[in-house]
Amino acid sequence: MSASLKVALLQLKGYPSKQESIANAIVHIRLAKDRGARLIILPECFNSPYSVSEFGRNAEAIPQGDTSQALAKVAAELGIYLVGGSYPEKEGTKLYNTCPVFGPQGQLLCKYRKMHLFDMDIPGKCTFRESSVLTPGEGLATFTIDSLKIGLGICWDKRFAELTACYRQLGCDMMIFPSAFDPYTGPLHWDLLGRARALDNQMFVALVSPARDPTTEYVAYGYTLLCDPWGRVLCRAKEEQEMLIADIDLSMCEQIKGQIPVLSQKRADVYELKLKKC
Amino acid sequence: MSASLKVALLQLKGYPSKQESIANAIVHIRLAKDRGARLIILPECFNSPYSVSEFGRNAEAIPQGDTSQALAKVAAELGIYLVGGSYPEKEGTKLYNTCPVFGPQGQLLCKYRKMHLFDMDIPGKCTFRESSVLTPGEGLATFTIDSLKIGLGICWDKRFAELTACYRQLGCDMMIFPSAFDPYTGPLHWDLLGRARALDNQMFVALVSPARDPTTEYVAYGYTLLCDPWGRVLCRAKEEQEMLIADIDLSMCEQIKGQIPVLSQKRADVYELKLKKC
Repeated sequence: MSASLKVALLQLKGYPSKQESIANAIVHIRLAKDRGARLIILPECFNSPYSVSEFGRNAEAIPQGDTSQALAKVAAELGIYLVGGSYPEKEGTKLYNTCPVFGPQGQLLCKYRKMHLFDMDIPGKCTFRESSVLTPGEGLATFTIDSLKIGLGICWDKRFAELTACYRQLGCDMMIFPSAFDPYTGPLHWDLLGRARALDNQMFVALVSPARDPTTEYVAYGYTLLCDPWGRVLCRAKEEQEMLIADIDLSMCEQIKGQIPVLSQKRADVYELKLKKC
Repeated sequence: MSASLKVALLQLKGYPSKQESIANAIVHIRLAKDRGARLIILPECFNSPYSVSEFGRNAEAIPQGDTSQALAKVAAELGIYLVGGSYPEKEGTKLYNTCPVFGPQGQLLCKYRKMHLFDMDIPGKCTFRESSVLTPGEGLATFTIDSLKIGLGICWDKRFAELTACYRQLGCDMMIFPSAFDPYTGPLHWDLLGRARALDNQMFVALVSPARDPTTEYVAYGYTLLCDPWGRVLCRAKEEQEMLIADIDLSMCEQIKGQIPVLSQKRADVYELKLKKC
């Protein structure tokens, strides 16, 4: 495993139109590349308003649609790994919340469909029901950069400890969650979930949010962050549009695995987490 | 389920001798009862120094030994539920780190033997190897107060998300971890692990530490705390000997289960955590 990887987490402002959102993303992807990033990550639902009434209108085939084509093109031009945050995908009559990953030749490396849909009802604070319009995904998705294996989840997925633990079983040393948390559960759970998934599985965890915009129907939390395998916050954005650039030191995973050897102390005779399909 | 339960978390000072440690515990158990506590929790290894060289010397049969007899007697006298923190247990030639629970008639309700032993090696910070002298336990242990089911773990066990999740599967709405963390990993992981286990499983979580004593071979962290099912810290001690008394509102578990319904959204078609023995 190479010593370090420069990663960019883009906390992007949303725009009403898909074209503006894509154009803004590409501007920031180029800036991130200028600063040396090899892996660049966009937020959840970066190309359209996050709203059950908008998903259908903005959905496209992945990777045939406009958004994917634009991301593939810039990934190839810059020779980067590009995690396309997520955007609404249409396949047949079904809609998904999907995270595609493009490689340095512009190829689609994998796509992940959000497996646990955001169904929350905290009266007076936040009510959302993705399952009213979206179909949940059916499996995990990973890609590799050199020998670093990276797993994908989207937002609500990070509430499910089992999912990240399954990615650990597959050998992932990093998780990426494009995530649009709300401003009520954000202060309660955002750091906690990012740090806990990182510590329990001794991996890097990136949570990448849209910038906060109080004028939209659904307001994203912001506070994009990157956690290290010790469960510490390496860097964190505020609420505005912002780019985080960080060098992740891959030897840190091996260090904690040796010093706090919990991954080899699991009691397979007492409990077992089984990944049934992949 | 009754509306609330008054619980006492006793962050006790350790003493060189078993007799002094037991006497100090009983003083504080009486004070907690005076303040209305129905459930009283002691720290890990409360009756003897926490040291691999001391475990054997202080070990006793549970519940036949002196410590258990003293705890059973005071539980019966006061009519309380008493979680005996933990202390070294001897059975045949084997030593365990064991948490017994005594009921309001002084009966032994259950005992839990630490299942994941504290083997950590952070050079210059903390190195400990429980497995050099202790045998790990073989199963989970629960008890109930009215309709509240409570699960038991000890210290290092809380690093294993699967264990608490198994207790959730058994219907527990509260976890108790008598815990002697060290002052290096304490600031990094103590709150994080308590809060994450609470949030992921939507249960109350109590971490009960010995008071900090810089003169002992192994220095305990302190900062005893109680988390609610939203992953918030309800109350927290500092480093000295201290008693926390809290009313836990059991309706809070039902509230979060309804508002953030992750427990019913698990993807049993994709992954499954199996408890193999109980």
